[in-house]
Amino acid sequence: MRASEMTWQEYRDCIATSIIFLPVGAMEQHGPHLPLSVDMILPARMSELAAEQVGGIVLPTIPYGYKSQPTSGGGQRFPGTTSLNGNTLINVVLDILRETYRHGGRRFVVYNGHYENAMFLTEAIDLFVSAAPDARVMLLDETLLISDEMLDELFADCGFPGWDLEHAAVIETSLMQYFAPELVREDRIVDGQIKREMPYAIFPPPDDVIPESGVLYKATFASREKGEKYVKHVLPKIVEVVRRELGV
Amino acid sequence: MRASEMTWQEYRDCIATSIIFLPVGAMEQHGPHLPLSVDMILPARMSELAAEQVGGIVLPTIPYGYKSQPTSGGGQRFPGTTSLNGNTLINVVLDILRETYRHGGRRFVVYNGHYENAMFLTEAIDLFVSAAPDARVMLLDETLLISDEMLDELFADCGFPGWDLEHAAVIETSLMQYFAPELVREDRIVDGQIKREMPYAIFPPPDDVIPESGVLYKATFASREKGEKYVKHVLPKIVEVVRRELGV
Amino acid sequence: MRASEMTWQEYRDCIATSIIFLPVGAMEQHGPHLPLSVDMILPARMSELAAEQVGGIVLPTIPYGYKSQPTSGGGQRFPGTTSLNGNTLINVVLDILRETYRHGGRRFVVYNGHYENAMFLTEAIDLFVSAAPDARVMLLDETLLISDEMLDELFADCGFPGWDLEHAAVIETSLMQYFAPELVREDRIVDGQIKREMPYAIFPPPDDVIPESGVLYKATFASREKGEKYVKHVLPKIVEVVRRELGV
Amino acid sequence: MRASEMTWQEYRDCIATSIIFLPVGAMEQHGPHLPLSVDMILPARMSELAAEQVGGIVLPTIPYGYKSQPTSGGGQRFPGTTSLNGNTLINVVLDILRETYRHGGRRFVVYNGHYENAMFLTEAIDLFVSAAPDARVMLLDETLLISDEMLDELFADCGFPGWDLEHAAVIETSLMQYFAPELVREDRIVDGQIKREMPYAIFPPPDDVIPESGVLYKATFASREKGEKYVKHVLPKIVEVVRRELGV
Amino acid sequence: MRASEMTWQEYRDCIATSIIFLPVGAMEQHGPHLPLSVDMILPARMSELAAEQVGGIVLPTIPYGYKSQPTSGGGQRFPGTTSLNGNTLINVVLDILRETYRHGGRRFVVYNGHYENAMFLTEAIDLFVSAAPDARVMLLDETLLISDEMLDELFADCGFPGWDLEHAAVIETSLMQYFAPELVREDRIVDGQIKREMPYAIFPPPDDVIPESGVLYKATFASREKGEKYVKHVLPKIVEVVRRELGV
Amino acid sequence: MRASEMTWQEYRDCIATSIIFLPVGAMEQHGPHLPLSVDMILPARMSELAAEQVGGIVLPTIPYGYKSQPTSGGGQRFPGTTSLNGNTLINVVLDILRETYRHGGRRFVVYNGHYENAMFLTEAIDLFVSAAPDARVMLLDETLLISDEMLDELFADCGFPGWDLEHAAVIETSLMQYFAPELVREDRIVDGQIKREMPYAIFPPPDDVIPESGVLYKATFASREKGEKYVKHVLPKIVEVVRRELGV
Repeated sequence: MRASEMTWQEYRDCIATSIIFLPVGAMEQHGPHLPLSVDMILPARMSELAAEQVGGIVLPTIPYGYKSQPTSGGGQRFPGTTSLNGNTLINVVLDILRETYRHGGRRFVVYNGHYENAMFLTEAIDLFVSAAPDARVMLLDETLLISDEMLDELFADCGFPGWDLEHAAVIETSLMQYFAPELVREDRIVDGQIKREMPYAIFPPPDDVIPESGVLYKATFASREKGEKYVKHVLPKIVEVVRRELGV
Repeated sequence: MRASEMTWQEYRDCIATSIIFLPVGAMEQHGPHLPLSVDMILPARMSELAAEQVGGIVLPTIPYGYKSQPTSGGGQRFPGTTSLNGNTLINVVLDILRETYRHGGRRFVVYNGHYENAMFLTEAIDLFVSAAPDARVMLLDETLLISDEMLDELFADCGFPGWDLEHAAVIETSLMQYFAPELVREDRIVDGQIKREMPYAIFPPPDDVIPESGVLYKATFASREKGEKYVKHVLPKIVEVVRRELGV
Repeated sequence: MRASEMTWQEYRDCIATSIIFLPVGAMEQHGPHLPLSVDMILPARMSELAAEQVGGIVLPTIPYGYKSQPTSGGGQRFPGTTSLNGNTLINVVLDILRETYRHGGRRFVVYNGHYENAMFLTEAIDLFVSAAPDARVMLLDETLLISDEMLDELFADCGFPGWDLEHAAVIETSLMQYFAPELVREDRIVDGQIKREMPYAIFPPPDDVIPESGVLYKATFASREKGEKYVKHVLPKIVEVVRRELGV
Repeated sequence: MRASEMTWQEYRDCIATSIIFLPVGAMEQHGPHLPLSVDMILPARMSELAAEQVGGIVLPTIPYGYKSQPTSGGGQRFPGTTSLNGNTLINVVLDILRETYRHGGRRFVVYNGHYENAMFLTEAIDLFVSAAPDARVMLLDETLLISDEMLDELFADCGFPGWDLEHAAVIETSLMQYFAPELVREDRIVDGQIKREMPYAIFPPPDDVIPESGVLYKATFASREKGEKYVKHVLPKIVEVVRRELGV
Repeated sequence: MRASEMTWQEYRDCIATSIIFLPVGAMEQHGPHLPLSVDMILPARMSELAAEQVGGIVLPTIPYGYKSQPTSGGGQRFPGTTSLNGNTLINVVLDILRETYRHGGRRFVVYNGHYENAMFLTEAIDLFVSAAPDARVMLLDETLLISDEMLDELFADCGFPGWDLEHAAVIETSLMQYFAPELVREDRIVDGQIKREMPYAIFPPPDDVIPESGVLYKATFASREKGEKYVKHVLPKIVEVVRRELGV
Repeated sequence: MRASEMTWQEYRDCIATSIIFLPVGAMEQHGPHLPLSVDMILPARMSELAAEQVGGIVLPTIPYGYKSQPTSGGGQRFPGTTSLNGNTLINVVLDILRETYRHGGRRFVVYNGHYENAMFLTEAIDLFVSAAPDARVMLLDETLLISDEMLDELFADCGFPGWDLEHAAVIETSLMQYFAPELVREDRIVDGQIKREMPYAIFPPPDDVIPESGVLYKATFASREKGEKYVKHVLPKIVEVVRRELGV
């Protein structure tokens, strides 16, 4: 299922008929309790779980993504947030899609694990399909598949702040507790908040919009159970939309 | 106030002390009743109104923007939607900011009139400020400043569908009726809707998610009065945030 | 006729059969009496007049062009002269031509309103047609169509200095008096001259080749009548060459 | 030690004083018995072992590298060999070095796990240091540190063919048996050979220089013991040169 | 004087104090009687003659230039006309200027031997000096220094057609007879002419504007004597302007 | 045989059927006794000799190449070493191949005269053939064709140090004595050596790995006879592999 673990012969025998997942992550601060790799781990694990069910294969995760924005990830000022320029990210994704297409791949899920990547992935995919008319690509960020009921349930105790503020907070912490508990510093989980609302962007960002801890909302409300609940809720939805759109 | 109408001496005498607005638009379908220039006209007019109040100057609008997406603008398949590649847009904006900085400009509002431009503007501005440490740039899309109360009022009769679906619909039509009624085909205003929800993107887009008319929501609920109300509501907010953040 | 004012359906119905004009301008100083937008206004207005007669449509003017040169526009040192790098301009024009071709457009007039743009437009068009073999593009700068007789007439009182020095001078001032008199500061019209001849270029330009006012020749000899005469002389010629070469 | 597993605070506290390892790999065929990830795993593991001893930290491995060449990796024709264009790889590495420098990093080891990457890494590093005069970067490929004596020992039974032909063969297989035995298909280990010598390159490559299995030399002579011997031989050498050149 | 023939020590000892000539040519058809290298040979020879007199050094000629245009060089359709894209040429020149500046060079003459190169050289130089404020660069095309009297004399027998049409014609043939007579096919010298005037450009170029022979004017009026006269006329002028502007 | 000396008609008549040699050189220090043009002259002369025998034609040498590395050419710190960025070199070669292909050329030998160019030439050729499926390109560096016996003979007196250290040393000096003795400063021939072994690269390079003279090995062992012997040995081999692979 992981392309990286296949031999070339195994890859050859399944690439044309499989759904190909390309997880795209980021190296980005996630508060004092989570590692810089949250946005690499989550799309990789979700892709693997989905690929298992739809007979897909998963390409190696792109570990570096686009620049973090203050109101969705704390911004570039945090040490460790290590980002690519927009055009670099476009070209990395474009090259990988073209190569996999050259090998026979036709149906792709670009699985985005870092909100700020989205438009650069869009551009890469658009440039790709314009020269590969028989390819079909889904750009997926599973947060958009979560139902309102599930949001109500997951945030019953603290309220849902919107997905942009859900950085290093309830869902990401819960998912890391579920997928990679050994990487969660349980004793350093804190609640954070964005210091003031800013429905626009300022460059360079003013100090007072950057949360000190890097956590944008209430991470202490996270739990492994919420992580599991989230995955069990969204995985069938992913499988369903992939099947529907990519014809498996 | 319009830089394009100034002589170089007039420009010279105010550039260092003025807030400089750069409207960025798009050439994009807006249904059977609105012209392709909606996203050029609105940010230009809003910039002018705001510049009047903060002593700003307005650069010529960039009339071509990033590619339209099916669920926020109908997508690239509509004739007339004429877009730049992402990297081209980044470079256009970057060059203009650098030139204006070279002339002495330090405080900028990049006024975005086309949702899909946002991340490419972000990248251009980020590249710009990283080499212009004493510049300060606001990236502004005024829809984010509208209060919930105003939304309730403007959409009292038809319900607010979310900003992405508000394409060629209530607000854009109302604003065009207010700012440029001669360009609105009153007899061709229709309600549209996105044919099915798609909380992800598919490339190339399936036919059945593209609204036939190009209108994503209910344009018949538009009125010049709503346009005026919207402007009178949001203009003081723009003035306030510009003053606060750019220190006028 | 203006694509920007069409709906997508109107655009769709005429794009394949129309001559498509793309005016390319510049934001550039034009002396103490003319606005920075001269090179945007003139190609736009000329394109519209020509399009009217050949059944053409006019795309939105590209308002920013290539860098001004000292001996043809005063150079980059004037505040307000806001230019694109060469490669940026190439890509902007290339993207727009490709998009319009995708919509069905096949016959183009790239109407250049700023001398320094020419070779970058040439490159953009060359790259475009090399991948669009059934497209046909004219690159037009109407000054080259003016007959010697008309030059004699227009410059009877002051002598023709060559087109490169005709910057912010007789013709441009006359045309602005004709097309946009409200933007001409009549009381600030001055004669200028290049301080010394320099049949080569020096970078950075020496101070003593840059005319203080930005006017390279005698603007006081301009008149609305000369503007009208120029337009009435050249418009039929434009129509003729467009018809001949693009087969209307 | 793995930057990806650190929190931003942990990263912040050590980045300025640590040697920073950036492993650069490739997704490339490695015969019927090894996974496509050999060139990701080996530089990552070696970097970790070295970092442990010099107090270094290891950035996430770049999993995609430059195009495989027929005589050193079998070439691009094998399914699964998924490569970046040269300029893309340059920009990825350049962006990451710049970001880490921005965070305070000054001493780098770019650890190359894929022969064909070398010159593109050279270019990225050269562009980086030319604007970061107080940075110091080592570009390392540990095969060059192996002593002749060790080569004699490791290849006592089959002879050393040169490093370029050592693809998916004795050393790589032995190292994978040592580091990741679960990914080695022991029952499919074969000897291969390049079909004919070609001391030049032909594009596209002739069929008869591409080894059918993807193995360029004798993989059956590999053993976990040789892998361990190799690592124990070279690791102290790596530590020594890193200490000497980067001043730890 | 030729940098290519110096050792690095000789180069080192003079680079900072010398005028540095960079000839930029083209590989372009020049009729049935002249070789493809005319535009390489002429700027190289002229640069050498000038360098001799001002104590300059001459860098290796860039042998490939920008695309030939129908009305100034016959256009790209002639076999042998082998051109660079605009952006490639910009980067080649920019890299060379930066490198020579890094070595200590401060005063440059970019000697253009191919009309169509001019604006791309302008862009390269502009980008260069914007980051090298103490450099000074002259962009020189010696045809612009020829006096009207000399033109009258050289074209007494056939009339001066303008510099653009002077392609593979009187001057270029005469200069080749003077500088490299062994490369002139005396028995194939022909007069040519552009078939019809076209004061605009068409892409792709219509067949009937491309002169069959590639000669745009009357080559039979050429002579070695005219070549010598031209050189003796213009060389002192070159020396004078170089001395005046670059302060030797 | 030299394309630069052909007329367009001569070029036209042979381009489709000839082997086309493109020599790629460098401007690089070669010690106190050799000119900066060694890497231009050698591939050009060798190409000409080979072309003579296989009925080939030789394009103008690209005189600037990729950056010199300390352990193979002394590095960039020597005055006179004037290099292109990697991506610039890629584009120059790509443009030239595409143009020659457009003229009908199908069989190419890219003759590399500068070790450090190799991977950038590889990339250019790879990009070229991927869009020119009926082209066939050999990338050739003749040092790889020298037999061990010949090496033994040529280095009988001083020992073969490996090709990377053979910079400005025995072979290059001998070849220059053979091909261009007028450019060899016989009285300044020295032996050099790299000061210490460095089986990795450091950026910026430490002073103590850069040989003072720029000579990496023993140039005093050079002789015109060795040059002649080398050429007579390798030329038939070149002719043989070109014939075999490019089907002449």
